[in-house]
Parts: sequence; structure tokens; C-alpha cells
Amino acid sequence: METLLSQIKSPADLKKLEKKQLLQVAAELREQIVATVAKNGGHLGSSLGVVELTIALHRVFDTPRDHIIWDVGHQAYAHKLLTGRQDQFGSLRQFNGMSGFPKRKESGYDSFGVGHSSTSISAALGMAAGRDICGDDNKVVAVIGDGSLTAGMAFEGLNHAGDLKKKLVVILNDNEMSISPNVGALSSFLSRKMTSDTFIRFKKETENLLGYVPGIGRDLVNLAKRAEESLKSFMTPGMLFEGFGFDYFGPIDGHNIEELVATLRNVAQINGPVLLHILTKKGKGYEPAELNPPKFHGVGPFDPATGETNGGKAGSAVAYTKVFSDTLIALAQQDERIVGITAAMAEGTGLKKFSEAFPERFFDVGIAEQHAVTFAAGLACQGLRPVVAIYSTFMQRAYDQVIHDVCLQNLPVTFALDRCGLVGADGPTHHGSFDLSFLRHIPNLILATPRNEVELQRIMKTASTVDGPFAYRYPRGNGVGLPLLDEIEVLDVGRGELLCDGSDGLIIAVGDMVNEALIAAQNLSERGLHLAVIDARFIKPLDADLILSQVQKAPFVVTAEENSLQGGFGSSVLELISDAGMTLPVERIGIPDRFIGQGTQAELRTQLGLSSAEIVKRVLQLTPIDTPKVQVS
Amino acid sequence: METLLSQIKSPADLKKLEKKQLLQVAAELREQIVATVAKNGGHLGSSLGVVELTIALHRVFDTPRDHIIWDVGHQAYAHKLLTGRQDQFGSLRQFNGMSGFPKRKESGYDSFGVGHSSTSISAALGMAAGRDICGDDNKVVAVIGDGSLTAGMAFEGLNHAGDLKKKLVVILNDNEMSISPNVGALSSFLSRKMTSDTFIRFKKETENLLGYVPGIGRDLVNLAKRAEESLKSFMTPGMLFEGFGFDYFGPIDGHNIEELVATLRNVAQINGPVLLHILTKKGKGYEPAELNPPKFHGVGPFDPATGETNGGKAGSAVAYTKVFSDTLIALAQQDERIVGITAAMAEGTGLKKFSEAFPERFFDVGIAEQHAVTFAAGLACQGLRPVVAIYSTFMQRAYDQVIHDVCLQNLPVTFALDRCGLVGADGPTHHGSFDLSFLRHIPNLILATPRNEVELQRIMKTASTVDGPFAYRYPRGNGVGLPLLDEIEVLDVGRGELLCDGSDGLIIAVGDMVNEALIAAQNLSERGLHLAVIDARFIKPLDADLILSQVQKAPFVVTAEENSLQGGFGSSVLELISDAGMTLPVERIGIPDRFIGQGTQAELRTQLGLSSAEIVKRVLQLTPIDTPKVQVS
Repeated sequence: METLLSQIKSPADLKKLEKKQLLQVAAELREQIVATVAKNGGHLGSSLGVVELTIALHRVFDTPRDHIIWDVGHQAYAHKLLTGRQDQFGSLRQFNGMSGFPKRKESGYDSFGVGHSSTSISAALGMAAGRDICGDDNKVVAVIGDGSLTAGMAFEGLNHAGDLKKKLVVILNDNEMSISPNVGALSSFLSRKMTSDTFIRFKKETENLLGYVPGIGRDLVNLAKRAEESLKSFMTPGMLFEGFGFDYFGPIDGHNIEELVATLRNVAQINGPVLLHILTKKGKGYEPAELNPPKFHGVGPFDPATGETNGGKAGSAVAYTKVFSDTLIALAQQDERIVGITAAMAEGTGLKKFSEAFPERFFDVGIAEQHAVTFAAGLACQGLRPVVAIYSTFMQRAYDQVIHDVCLQNLPVTFALDRCGLVGADGPTHHGSFDLSFLRHIPNLILATPRNEVELQRIMKTASTVDGPFAYRYPRGNGVGLPLLDEIEVLDVGRGELLCDGSDGLIIAVGDMVNEALIAAQNLSERGLHLAVIDARFIKPLDADLILSQVQKAPFVVTAEENSLQGGFGSSVLELISDAGMTLPVERIGIPDRFIGQGTQAELRTQLGLSSAEIVKRVLQLTPIDTPKVQVS
Repeated sequence: METLLSQIKSPADLKKLEKKQLLQVAAELREQIVATVAKNGGHLGSSLGVVELTIALHRVFDTPRDHIIWDVGHQAYAHKLLTGRQDQFGSLRQFNGMSGFPKRKESGYDSFGVGHSSTSISAALGMAAGRDICGDDNKVVAVIGDGSLTAGMAFEGLNHAGDLKKKLVVILNDNEMSISPNVGALSSFLSRKMTSDTFIRFKKETENLLGYVPGIGRDLVNLAKRAEESLKSFMTPGMLFEGFGFDYFGPIDGHNIEELVATLRNVAQINGPVLLHILTKKGKGYEPAELNPPKFHGVGPFDPATGETNGGKAGSAVAYTKVFSDTLIALAQQDERIVGITAAMAEGTGLKKFSEAFPERFFDVGIAEQHAVTFAAGLACQGLRPVVAIYSTFMQRAYDQVIHDVCLQNLPVTFALDRCGLVGADGPTHHGSFDLSFLRHIPNLILATPRNEVELQRIMKTASTVDGPFAYRYPRGNGVGLPLLDEIEVLDVGRGELLCDGSDGLIIAVGDMVNEALIAAQNLSERGLHLAVIDARFIKPLDADLILSQVQKAPFVVTAEENSLQGGFGSSVLELISDAGMTLPVERIGIPDRFIGQGTQAELRTQLGLSSAEIVKRVLQLTPIDTPKVQVS
């Protein structure tokens, strides 16, 4: 049976449908989204929540001439299905497949590439300002969730928009739930929907009354009473945005297509910045997702009939996130100065468990990485030992605060960077490819990465003893299956480990690549080549003694890391060797100088040569041992 | 004659004075501040504006047990003078002297080091939260200007503070003037002071009336009229902060010590977050500064009697900032797609002149670097060519936006980074020491730096022709004195320049260090050593052909840059040479791995060996030419 959806090749087809057919389109969109995400994994709840909004937007606006900017972009699956991409939808989030986020290269309907939160108002305002400079008349719409509004950047955009007074529609998609339940004063007044109604009633009645002949005592007393009421419950969502120079409409039901269409038609005519507040339910229309929004925010494959996930891959190895979570609790039991901080990633970083064990010593600041880091600096000034757990990619947002508020003052703040290196299906916006490069040049900062889960424990314990800033990074996924330690020893800061001796060459690696190096060394030793392998462990400070003593007897060096080759770990080894006045061939393995696509971690690592096979290949290229290579002709 | 001020060795002495003596203290503080800044240069206007506030704070609070956090910190001179630092004050902003900003290492009274804007609420909240965890009872006060409130980070702090409900005082120092006049909707409602009064009156009267027996028609009608009035002028400053969960007081006169003391005593008792709104005048008490606030925000030496500055150093060379300013206007005259954007640095970046020439194509977004960059990305999506001019050190705030919103999408946004490298007296918070290291690893980005003013023109012209992201950095101070070009040629992207040929060694430099390299080469040639000198010009992409062809015939390489040695330009040369399979000694000259203090640029460059002398020294160390150094034993 042909579905209505399959007849929609572009928004033009959607516009041709009868009003009453739209409900069926919504149902078909949900079915398609659930079926695909059940197979591929993805961001389910957010996309289900905006099905009606997406239909209404493409009915009302003339996309792609009019621009829709989806904040974060994890809610754009219906948008993709309605804009000529149904054929590719099965490849969602797969290697060489369709992106899980809007992406300008993928479609002209994706007006702005997204992935990180809270960029939409700034981008939309830029487009609106550009439109006016060019004398065009297209419309610009930003769709932003209440959680994304917590980030300072969204506020910067609002503030500038209110000042510029450009024609611009911002849709606040209020589902009372960002990744985790919202934090912050903002969310508490956004939820005061009733007071907003109270207020509108009051305003209307005042206006009516002022048209009348005065003197009717009772009505006026009632009015005064209601005035008092509304004064007490002061701050309605509308007042915030009106204060910033926006016309405010709403809140309206974000699942009522007719109401959405009618309201959007109206607000699209307003000649200035307007904010439309809509209420939606995350996971709408798929019961398991409605009942458990955090689980279905970003979810792996699941059974669409029941919502059961298959619980991760088999095997005894524990996820790094869980090791971090359990170890931090153990450390905090011994050291009451330890406090945990995250930025709307309590589930993802494993700090949820910490928050249950130590509710007084845990802070989720919402999507506000900059504040998280400087807030931690303040805690450290009071003698505490804050551990800030933020994904590597989102720590990019707080780069200046790490430098200016923590490291310049040499404060004992620890940064736990989960999901370093290649993260998989979330793709280029989410890879943690740069952290070694953007942290390594910051003075005073110690920087380490573990090759397995036990090393993570040791590094964490070590960080807790250091009286200065410390960052460690660990990948998405599981450790190698070692039993965890109860008694964790403290490492010497800046001390690497020689894992394997040999004089036919030297491999220096960090993180997961250490294990690849060991496999490569084993393979090469079977070919009669005996290489030394060092786990540098600390990217900063490097273990100069260990590395240089091995370099001295090695004909060549191979470095391996899951980080950008520009300014990363391999470069730090080049710097060390060069500064020591030594010269020998160095091959560096790492992430090349381009943005990396999506795919499983395994697919991407194979593609990029982050593997033992690549190490073996490079070593063999360097080795006709009898003719040591000194200089290329 | 002994002054009152000279008797104040610590805030305890201030507390002993009679109320009526405080006016004299204020006058003496002003005199001392003006005299010292007239000699050393510094941030005059802000410090003069908070003299009374500083006195009141140290009268009321038990510093340093209670913490005062000065946002940005350029207003803390009176604070320094009242906290035992009068003897050192003459060395303000000088090499090895007193910092121009609060600095934890300098004094226990400096609770938090600052320099960049908008960190104070986050840091103060961290201290308040830490205090409560530790069971202490000290007080925490953040002092933030209205300009600093524009930054998203301040909003993130407010939002979290309102949620946590910690005891905390935030003083909003409203001088209606940040570095440049404020922008943004926020400032427009902050200035609605009258409506705030209207509102308070209305609230009070309502409350009174509700206590009465109803029925008096006329009063109620008046009430209703006033209600309507206040509804129209809705958003008062108090309502914003109350909406965020703060108790709001003010606005009060920030130059009335008695009122300040009384109000601070009251707000200090409130058991939750409280915002005190005070009104001050920038430059208060020194007429030239009151009349021209932008000039006296950060000012060089001047005549204290007249306020006349000596107009910069003699000589015909033009400041890089002026070259940028004039050249951008010239380019914009030829290319109407060029738009200029800055973040509260219109004067400092020279874009003020651009804004006068092209008011419709200029945007000052306020202190909001993150928004500035993504806003520019939006403009670029519309086909425009935005040029974002932000100091190197402040661009750190927008690192993620450069990656995620501009470079990942390969949008034609140009970043003009003024004040790269060592900036001088503003010291460690303001040096642009990291930009090559934090930008170099970003895919798609072209990165260049000029050795003189004409090269800046050429690089700017080149950037305007490139269909992708482009960043150039240039230092604070003057060019070398070349006549500027009217017809500017376009460079080949990634093409360096061989300035001097020779086979006894190779110097590769960027920026100002190219000139040092040429002087060094001249000096060495007089000793019979003939070195080649390359101006790499582009840090990314490097001119591999030129560099490698020269490396091939060189016994050694010296690189020179005014940037961190970690992951900077020299490292990129190491990477290039290593990846080409070549090995030879490389000496790198640059900024070492520590935070660099304050001083004149010349003093700091001498201290750090960023000089022709250092290049000569390194070359001579590498050269007994007869015994080429291959490997250290």
C-alpha cells in the first residue's frame, strides 16, 4: 500500500494535501522514524516531539527559500523525510549515510549545520541581517528547545536580536526536558504557564475597564485583587522575551497542526523579532519514549514493539563511563573535597550515580559549559576538588575558561573528558578529535589518557592528589575487560610505561592506540622485528627521560593517537626529540586534517588507519633495517 | 602632609575612620589613581567610577574572609590601594610590577583573578556553593558592569544562581557604558529606570489599597490607569533579576557612600541571591574622563592637568590597527559583500571608522564573542563576506563556534585577530600567545600573519577572495614604516616568500619575527655565515614546496614565532619536515610553556628571547659547520 508520506517528494507536495490528511502524514512520519531509529539508533524523543511542528512549518513557509534552523538538530528527522530524503533515510547515521543532523552539504533544505546546542538564534539572526543587507525578503525561523535556551550563547543571540529588530521567528519548543530535566531559574519560570494566562486575562480586563465610565466599585476591587495576584507571580515567559524586544505569542499546543499553521501564518507577517512558545511532549506518539524520555533521547537499536534495547554488546568489559562513575564515587568517599559538576550530561557522563550518592556535592548546571568551568574554579578557591565531566567536543565551548579561570590561576580543577576521539554515528560535530591539540599548549595543565579501564582508575586517583589543573580523556565504549581495582595506586605525574622492549624501532602511543601498538609489536616480532612500545600515558608533561632513552637506541619512531595530527600527541613527541637535539625518522599516526564523517567507531578507525595494521605497515616501510633511512633525497 | 589614605594599611584601618572622613579618602584615592595612570597608563574610567563602592564594600564586608570578585578587574585600583598595596602602586602595569587586574598571587584580598569579562557571577557562585559545602559562613560579592552582563556566560551564572539559591550578592555597576556604548536589548531595558520607579509605586499603592475597605471609585480608577501604564512599560531591570530568582534592590546612587553602606549592610543579611543595582559615572571626579569615557577606558600616559595624551610614539610607522581599519574600508568599497563585526571592540579594532563608512554593514554585538562568530556564519550563508575583528585573547571565547559553525561548514568568514602575541602591560590574561596553536588544527581554516603593514594589506585582500574560512593575526603596535598600497595584489594561498638565500642554515619565521630573522641573517653574514630566510606567511597551509626545497640544502633550521612553542608554527614545521621523511636539527624560538607576565612588549620580547640576538645565538650553537650535528649522544 502506498503511504501518503511516500507521495511527498518535497514540501510542495505537502502543501497540496488536504488539511485532514495531515494527521495521517504525522502518523506515517512517526512510524517511519520509530522503525528507522529502532534499527540504526538515534535521537528519537526529540524528533517525535516536533512532527506536527515540522509539518506546519513546511506548510506555511516557502522552504528552502525561507530558512528553518533547527537548534542542535537532533529533532530534524521529520524535516529530512519531508524534504526529498526518504530514499536515503534507511542509512541514517550510518557510514557514508545520511547525517543525524541537518547538514548544508546534504540538502538545500538544511539551512544551517548543527550538532552543538544553542547556535540557532545567532545563525538565524545572521541570515536575517544578511537578507536585509541584500534586499531579499525570505523568512528565517529558528527552532530552539527550552534546554538549549540555558546556554549563554542563546541569550547573546536573543539580546542582539531584540536590539537589531530584524524580522525573525524564534520558536521555543518547550518540552520541559532537555537531555536531562532542566536546571536553572529560567526553566522554573518557563513552566509558569498558568501565570501567563492569569496575566493575559488581567491585561485584557484592565484595558476593557479603562474604556468604561468609572465608578463601579466591585469590578475594580476584583481587578485590583487580580493585579496583586499577577504581581506576585510576576515573571511570565512572555515578559522575559518582551523585555528583550520580541513579540511573544503562546504558549500553544505544539501537537495541534491546525493551530500551529494558523499561528505561524500570523507570526510570519510580523515585521520584527517574534517568539512563538509551543508546548510539546518529547517522544510524542510512541509510548515507551513518552514514558522514559532520557532513555529515548539518544538511543541505540531497540525492539520497536516493546522499546526494549538489547543492552549493549555482549562481553565482560565495562564502559569507560561506568568506570569513571564508580571510581569517582569511591574517590569521593575517601576525599570529601571532591565535588562533581556537569553541563546537562549527568546521564551520559555517569555522574547521575554520583549525584545520588552525594547530592550535596553534585551540580548539573544545564547546557552551560563556560559557567561549569568557572563555577568549578570558584569551588576550587574554597578548597574543594571539583571534577568537571563534559564530553570532549563540548569542552570546546569552555576553552577560554579552562585557560583564564583555571590554569592561569593554577587551581585544582579536574576535567574528565568523556567521548574523546571518534564517537561514531553522531559524526563530525561530535568527534572529540581536537582535545589534545587544544589543551596541550595551556600552561600548568596536566594532560593524560588511559589505555584501559584500570589505567583510568589510576589516572583519576592521581588527579585527585595533584594540587593544580588536570585533564584526562577517555573514549566512548568499553574498556578491555580488566577487573577493576579496589586499591588504586597513585601514578607519578609525567611517568610513562615501557610495555615492551626492543631495539628495531620504537612505538609511542596513547589511549586505545597503545593496545593497537602492542598487537602490532607482537605481529612484527613474529616477523623477527623487535620493537619497543611505550604508553606515554601523560601527554603533558611527557616522560622525557623514558622516551629519549628509548629514542636514543631506536632507528625510528612511530607515534599513534586518536587525535588530530596537527599539534597533537605526535607533535609533542616531535617537539621533545627536536628540542633534545636528536634527529631520526618519526612516523605519526592519528586523525588527518579534515572533518571526519559518521560511522561506527570501528569503521572510522579502519578508514583512517588507526589500527595495528597501519602501525605494522608504517614500520615495514621504515624497515629495510640494513639501510637506515636518514634523509629523503 | 600625611594623607588619610597613607594611614590605611588594610581595610581594618578604613573601618576605624569617621563617616565624614570617607569623602576625603575617596578624593585621595582618585588623586592617587589619576596620578599613577597618567604616568603608567591603565584603565582609568572604570576605577574612578567605583571609588565610593570600593570604600563601602571594605567598610561593610570582612575582607579577605568575605570575597569580592571584580568582573574584568579593570576597576580594582581603589581596591588595591585600600588593601595594603600603596607602596607598590607606582609599579602598576610595569614589568615585574603590580598587575592591572586582581590576581590571587598578588594579594589575599584578590579573591579571583580576572581580565576577561563576565566570569564573576560564575566564580562567586562557585565560592558560595563551596562555602556551604564546607560549612563556612563567609560572604561572597560579585561586582559586574552592565557591559559584562551582555555576555552569555554572565547569564549562565545568573540562571544557575537563581536555581541554587545560595547566599550571594551581585552588584550590578550600571554606568551605561561598557568599553563602547552598550548594545543589545538588555541595555535598553536596564536604562528604563523610571519605569522601575513607576512600578514600585504601583505595587505599593496596590498593596495599600487592598488593605482598605473597597468602594472608593476614584482611587481605584487611578490605580487601574497606573496599572495600564506599568503594563506598557513592562520589563524593569528588577523584573528580569527577580524572574531569575534574585532579590532585587535599586537602582541607588553608586557615588553616595552612606547610602551604599546602609544598603550593603541590608543586602548582606539576605539569605539567598540578591542583586543590587547601582548607578555610577565612568571617570567620576576627573573631568577629562567624564567627558570622554572611551578615551579613558584604557589609556596610555597623559598629562593629569589637561588629560592630553602624547599621541603615541614618534615616527612615521602606522599602527596595524589603523592599517586594518583603512584597508577594510577600501576592500569594502570594492566588494559590497564585506560586512564588519566586532564584540564591543569597535574602537580597539579600528572598526569604528568602518561603521561610519558603512553603518548598514557593521555590527557591534556587545561582549558576546560566541554569538559574533555564529552570527557571522549566518551572514555568510546569505552570500556575504563577514570579517570578524576580535582580539586574539578574546577569540578564545569562540573557539567552538569557529570549529562548529564556520569551519565545519567551510563558510567564508574571515577572522581578524588584533593584538596577537605579547600585548604588553595588560599581561597574562590578555596576551594572544595561543592563537596559532588553537587555530592551526581546525580543518578548512587558512591561517596567515604578516611581517609588516603592506603584507597585512595583501593578506586581507587575499582573504577577501577566498571562498572559505580565513584567519589572520597581527600584533599590537606599529608596522615597520612602509608606505601603504593603493593597489593591493592577491597572494597565492599557502605561498611563502624566500627573503634571503644562503646555504649555511635556514631560518623560517612568521610575523614580526621575520624582521628579527632578517637582522639576524645580516649579522651572521657579517660573520661569514650565509643563511636563507623564509617568511612562511601562511601557517596553514604551509608552503611545503618552498620550505622543503630549502630544508634539503640546509644543515639546520631555526623557526621563530611570537606564539606558544607547544603546537604552534615551529611545530607545524617539525610536522612538515618529519612527514616528508627528512631529518635535521631544528631549533624553535617562541613563547615558552608558562603564562607570561606584564611589561612593555620590548621588555617581554627581550626576556623571552624573541629577538634577532637569540636567533644569532641559536645559529652559532648549531654551527661548527665542519661537524654537522646529526644526533646527540
